[in-house]
Amino acid sequence: MKTETISKAQLLQYWQGQRSLTRRVIDAFPESDLFNFTIGGMRPFSTMCAELLAIPVPSLLSFTTGKIEAFDEIPKFTTKEEILKQWDEDTMQINTLFNQLSDAQFQQNFVLFGQYDLKIHQHLFYFIDNEIHHRGQAYVYLRALGIEPPYFWETF
Amino acid sequence: MKTETISKAQLLQYWQGQRSLTRRVIDAFPESDLFNFTIGGMRPFSTMCAELLAIPVPSLLSFTTGKIEAFDEIPKFTTKEEILKQWDEDTMQINTLFNQLSDAQFQQNFVLFGQYDLKIHQHLFYFIDNEIHHRGQAYVYLRALGIEPPYFWETF
Repeated sequence: MKTETISKAQLLQYWQGQRSLTRRVIDAFPESDLFNFTIGGMRPFSTMCAELLAIPVPSLLSFTTGKIEAFDEIPKFTTKEEILKQWDEDTMQINTLFNQLSDAQFQQNFVLFGQYDLKIHQHLFYFIDNEIHHRGQAYVYLRALGIEPPYFWETF
Repeated sequence: MKTETISKAQLLQYWQGQRSLTRRVIDAFPESDLFNFTIGGMRPFSTMCAELLAIPVPSLLSFTTGKIEAFDEIPKFTTKEEILKQWDEDTMQINTLFNQLSDAQFQQNFVLFGQYDLKIHQHLFYFIDNEIHHRGQAYVYLRALGIEPPYFWETF
């Protein structure tokens, strides 16, 4: 029998582990720095969070229903508490929607947000690596603010 | 037939795509900033590169031969050119060694560097996410230096 490189359940666990670490990084920011601190003309981390919230659930809804929506990363929050609340609600919705994907779908192409034509597993890995990328940037923001970030390997 | 979430060949391509972007990020640094520029007491990106070079080939050698070596991230280079040369040599070696992994190995545990007991696919994803994490930090360094980094989606 052929063994899988990574099973569907393992991929979901990996993704949620990364999201759990990102949640800790969001929580490590003082409220005002989350919304205002920047380096080199980049976005504050809260604006990156709006992007990170705009991707997984809307994408999984598209994958599972076939409905295409435009990408919308306009922040729907004004406080850290609201970001974390949305993060946690999305955690539950990701679990539900991810498990509605059929095995075959991972190798099927999907034009996400009407723009990006990739296989669904490629979209999923992009969601994950885009989150790690911005979270890595948030680590520099925290260090520049003199705040010790969560350990990088705390993905549980 | 059960479809794979991501095949072995796709995982290698994904990994090398990320490494290809990281190579461009290394190359975007002026020599002296690569070795000296830091923010918030963090390591210069060259020192992070030493870590990124210390992981994939030594790990794949361990996975394929069963030999355990201690982790050694002491830089073996003093110039950007030497980093890029090692990066390119490792690209070839990763292709060769990765293809020597059996399908079954991805789901087998391995105590890497005599310390980290994870399934081999978990090690591989850690190598990738650790690289994306530090590369994300390098993006902030570049922006702080007023240098436009490569596009994040240029993973080819």
